[in-house]
Amino acid sequence: MHRWLSQIHEPQALQAMSVRELTELAQEVRDALCNLVSERSAHFASNLGVVELCLALHSVFDFRQDRLIWDTGHQIYPHKLVTGRYPEFATIRTRGGLMGYPNPAESPYDLLMTGHAGCSLSTALGLKTGDDLLGRTDRRVVAVIGDGAFSSGIVFEAMNNAGELEKNLLVILNDNKMSICPRVGGMAHYLDRLRTNPIYTGFKSEILKVLNRVPLFGDPTERFLAQMKEAVKAGLHGGMLFEDLGFRYLGPVDGHDLSLLRKYLKMVQTLPGPILLHVLTEKGHGYQPAAQDPTYFHTPPALKNVAGESGLNGKQGPAYTEIARDAIRAQMVRDSRVTVLTAAMCQGNKLGPIRDEFPDRFFDTGICESHAVAFAAGQAKVGIRPIVDIYSTFLQRSFDQIFQEIALQNLPVLLMLDRAGLVGPDGPTHHGAFDLAYLRIFPNLVVTAPGDAYDLQAVLDFALCHDAPCSIRYPKAAAETLPGRRAPVELGKAEIFSWGCDGAILCCGALLSECLRAASCLQARGLNVGVVNARFVKPLDVDVVQRALRECAFVVTVEEGCLTGGYGSAVLEAASDAGWDVRRFRRLGLPDRFVEHGERRELLADLGLDAQGITRACLALADKADMLDVRADAGRAATSQPACAP
Amino acid sequence: MHRWLSQIHEPQALQAMSVRELTELAQEVRDALCNLVSERSAHFASNLGVVELCLALHSVFDFRQDRLIWDTGHQIYPHKLVTGRYPEFATIRTRGGLMGYPNPAESPYDLLMTGHAGCSLSTALGLKTGDDLLGRTDRRVVAVIGDGAFSSGIVFEAMNNAGELEKNLLVILNDNKMSICPRVGGMAHYLDRLRTNPIYTGFKSEILKVLNRVPLFGDPTERFLAQMKEAVKAGLHGGMLFEDLGFRYLGPVDGHDLSLLRKYLKMVQTLPGPILLHVLTEKGHGYQPAAQDPTYFHTPPALKNVAGESGLNGKQGPAYTEIARDAIRAQMVRDSRVTVLTAAMCQGNKLGPIRDEFPDRFFDTGICESHAVAFAAGQAKVGIRPIVDIYSTFLQRSFDQIFQEIALQNLPVLLMLDRAGLVGPDGPTHHGAFDLAYLRIFPNLVVTAPGDAYDLQAVLDFALCHDAPCSIRYPKAAAETLPGRRAPVELGKAEIFSWGCDGAILCCGALLSECLRAASCLQARGLNVGVVNARFVKPLDVDVVQRALRECAFVVTVEEGCLTGGYGSAVLEAASDAGWDVRRFRRLGLPDRFVEHGERRELLADLGLDAQGITRACLALADKADMLDVRADAGRAATSQPACAP
Repeated sequence: MHRWLSQIHEPQALQAMSVRELTELAQEVRDALCNLVSERSAHFASNLGVVELCLALHSVFDFRQDRLIWDTGHQIYPHKLVTGRYPEFATIRTRGGLMGYPNPAESPYDLLMTGHAGCSLSTALGLKTGDDLLGRTDRRVVAVIGDGAFSSGIVFEAMNNAGELEKNLLVILNDNKMSICPRVGGMAHYLDRLRTNPIYTGFKSEILKVLNRVPLFGDPTERFLAQMKEAVKAGLHGGMLFEDLGFRYLGPVDGHDLSLLRKYLKMVQTLPGPILLHVLTEKGHGYQPAAQDPTYFHTPPALKNVAGESGLNGKQGPAYTEIARDAIRAQMVRDSRVTVLTAAMCQGNKLGPIRDEFPDRFFDTGICESHAVAFAAGQAKVGIRPIVDIYSTFLQRSFDQIFQEIALQNLPVLLMLDRAGLVGPDGPTHHGAFDLAYLRIFPNLVVTAPGDAYDLQAVLDFALCHDAPCSIRYPKAAAETLPGRRAPVELGKAEIFSWGCDGAILCCGALLSECLRAASCLQARGLNVGVVNARFVKPLDVDVVQRALRECAFVVTVEEGCLTGGYGSAVLEAASDAGWDVRRFRRLGLPDRFVEHGERRELLADLGLDAQGITRACLALADKADMLDVRADAGRAATSQPACAP
Repeated sequence: MHRWLSQIHEPQALQAMSVRELTELAQEVRDALCNLVSERSAHFASNLGVVELCLALHSVFDFRQDRLIWDTGHQIYPHKLVTGRYPEFATIRTRGGLMGYPNPAESPYDLLMTGHAGCSLSTALGLKTGDDLLGRTDRRVVAVIGDGAFSSGIVFEAMNNAGELEKNLLVILNDNKMSICPRVGGMAHYLDRLRTNPIYTGFKSEILKVLNRVPLFGDPTERFLAQMKEAVKAGLHGGMLFEDLGFRYLGPVDGHDLSLLRKYLKMVQTLPGPILLHVLTEKGHGYQPAAQDPTYFHTPPALKNVAGESGLNGKQGPAYTEIARDAIRAQMVRDSRVTVLTAAMCQGNKLGPIRDEFPDRFFDTGICESHAVAFAAGQAKVGIRPIVDIYSTFLQRSFDQIFQEIALQNLPVLLMLDRAGLVGPDGPTHHGAFDLAYLRIFPNLVVTAPGDAYDLQAVLDFALCHDAPCSIRYPKAAAETLPGRRAPVELGKAEIFSWGCDGAILCCGALLSECLRAASCLQARGLNVGVVNARFVKPLDVDVVQRALRECAFVVTVEEGCLTGGYGSAVLEAASDAGWDVRRFRRLGLPDRFVEHGERRELLADLGLDAQGITRACLALADKADMLDVRADAGRAATSQPACAP
């Protein structure tokens, strides 16, 4: 039990606390974070880094009326602890428990549900202009953004706009020198230079006093002196880049010094216009191993298992991410034209070995998905074979570049969509639900969804020989390799695993093993249902669709993506264009709502996308077709398996 | 006939020309531009502004091996004139003629087909890194970008990346102080300050020599002196913002001084690393009226018609854009919570009067669509009713913000999609082909497509009372108002114009009048075909779909959007989910390829989306259903209209 945390029900309690008490509270928050990650994988190092900043903010501002946005939102755990969610904190990232990101449904102190980086300045500017229009100019708005998110283009767009609107807006740059991996880019180097600026506030103001006494006259020499004066003023403090855009720059400030932080926050409360407060924090602060390896400890596996080396999360087989990485690496060895681009997902996509082995052919743009895709298009134009390796959900940032720079030019860029489908504990901001629907609308693009680990490699090999843009999606899951002799990958051709005239399951993607299990269950009930590995969403294998609709009593499509506009809709479009009957056709996939967080297996079961759910759906179709009565005897004769209970 | 232009078949010819000859050529280019716009609406002022820059580039570089990207691409006319396309220049922006944007199919000197702003730095960096990897480090890469496009987030992302990679990359900032409208934002003010920097190159270098003699010692005073020295150095030239990101800044240079431009271009050829050359141009330079009103002359109507005041493009009725603007204005008068946000489309969307009347409630973010949408979400969160008024094709830039900031939060932001459908002469980069397909995949979003001008206002009034996000699309076309008593707008309800058991045309959007004309033609052939104004794509009116499929011999959907995943697919999904027969159902819309440029009416006819095409499609379905023989007599009895010939 934590003494302070257990009695803080509202964050206003922090306003009455002394710095010494807040320091004790900070220790309790760190302790709660350590307890949590010893049990379960969660965002860790970033949360350790913002403890003092979070407490200072709540002790100086009153966010019942002021507004606070944590950019991205993975660093919101301390905020959750002091805004009434300490009692449920242990449930975080579990199904039905607290989200690992801001969630307005949990607390009025979480304004927006976020997870994608860089939008905080834009929404904060919206909050401020909105409040002002409604006559509530007294409400202050604070956005806290990490230096990793800070290079996103939308941040620059918002600064550009805010600099002109001159609204009172406090942006806190939480600079821990890290994205998930060490940060990259020109801005990173600039922030490094600001950190080491050796001229301190007191000294500065003395000099400025002197300089302000330099008189101004009309002749060229005097004008030069005036210029020089301005130049010296400018050089005396850092952050000119932000000042050039219309922000007032303050800092850098030690982000672990509660007293100093409070002093600065109180000062900026009274300053008008847009302000950038540069706060230096240490990712992993207060927990030695995390501070030393913040990349590993960004979202570490449950610590107690790591210590024990043999816990539940110990040795599993490789994930699809690793299969993809190895397949990419093999191609890079084979073909020197193959490059890899990612947007700060080097760690998430396990690309470290590739970065180390092929430093010249590996490009990490930072959290800049739009740029990454257009950048790849430029490479493809001159004969390189770029692979853009980005999570499905974050590739949404590149939607317009996929349209203009890739599909419209018909350039052979390969899009690798990791974490396509349900990602598990990260929840709705991170589920890769929409990619099949949004990619297949673009002409020229070949859209694929391999069925297993074998397929992932085979489709990748195919895609790099195909002279047009191509996408490959795979889930955040342990890789499976299905047994049996496999059909080679051919453009627009599905792979028939089995065929049965009672029904056909057309599976799009890595739920293939679930479909095969469902077919076994149905077999046990006397139904001979075939399974097809769709492989291609676009171009679609129309022949296999026709054959299934003609020969099979029912047809089901299965996909780990939104039903609206997805693979099942592509099948429907093809069938309708050809005038085929689809009355005994059904689509299984993600419903038209945002799916909550939870373990992927739990969510798949909830949504009827595991073997049992697929079995149930097939049985319902068979029932409609009056097939079940006929086959009931056969079913009873077969061995009954408990796993098959629908 | 132009003496120089008629004999320049390859741009290398410019390398042998003197500055005097190039000046004559520049005059010819301006003359050709003026001839063009006297005949036809085209991008004008921006092209007048880059004449000297274009000629200087081709006279210094050899773009058979070096690479040149014109950002956005609307200013590419002079480039087309000197790269072998002078003979076809008069065909520009007409069907089958030259495109008004870069087109690799026309010339190897056009590298990428573009039209959306801001991606040139990213693709240029891709070209350069690709060439380097292929061992062609000698190939230079130049990107020319206007100051309007320069505030796009992707530009910042690319600069951030380029600054780190330290590749030889020349970025020319073509600063004419304008987007389409006068530019906005902190960056704009910064560029203004650079323009007025009174210290010139020669003077600068003298001072730098002196400063370099200041000795460096170890004690604090000396360190301060060193700092001051750096500060003065910094202050002596502008562009520190770009230098902070890793670029070398040069300029500003007079962009109409051919000799000076050539000097600078030759100099930067030898400099390593990423370089930003700041060139000052005048939009409309060389044609007095355009230089005085560059906003009007960005894409003016055909000049000879303007002069005559009664040409073909003279008085038409208002466009949908104006109907939308007036409906928005009416709501702003009624409700002080309504704001309007646009992304540099103030001119295109005719929002000037709103900007002038409600300056506090009008926000132009510049070409920053991502930010504009997230900004609107922030306003909606506090109780404002923001309207985001952006072209369909450019809203693609906000795809991820529509997902996270709007749909996921279920915030009542109203998206107004101007130029949805075929935009005409701008062509494939500008057609609003995809919005229905990409918007309807998001939960919570209400997606609408009004059928005419009445509907546009009524749906807008509905949307502002609806407490959830909503989109409204309308084409770039003269507004039509259909006669008759109209049904009030109700969530998820279609409007039945007429009903006939022979067939039903479910029309999504402003092709409604074409559908009604088609129904008349079919009537003349004895077919009683009803017409439904779908209004809502999401939620879909499932009842009307069911009734049509049950009662009508055939059903056709019509939409001015991509067939893949569009309204017709939504109808198919609903029908399939309910198990209805769709064998006599057909979808009409945009095919799975990029549609070329041409007049909207020409393109609609080509694609079978005008009254005749819709009639043909219905007749084909009726033919399949063996209905035509039965009705042939009745058809012959009716008055035959020439316009109805299929």
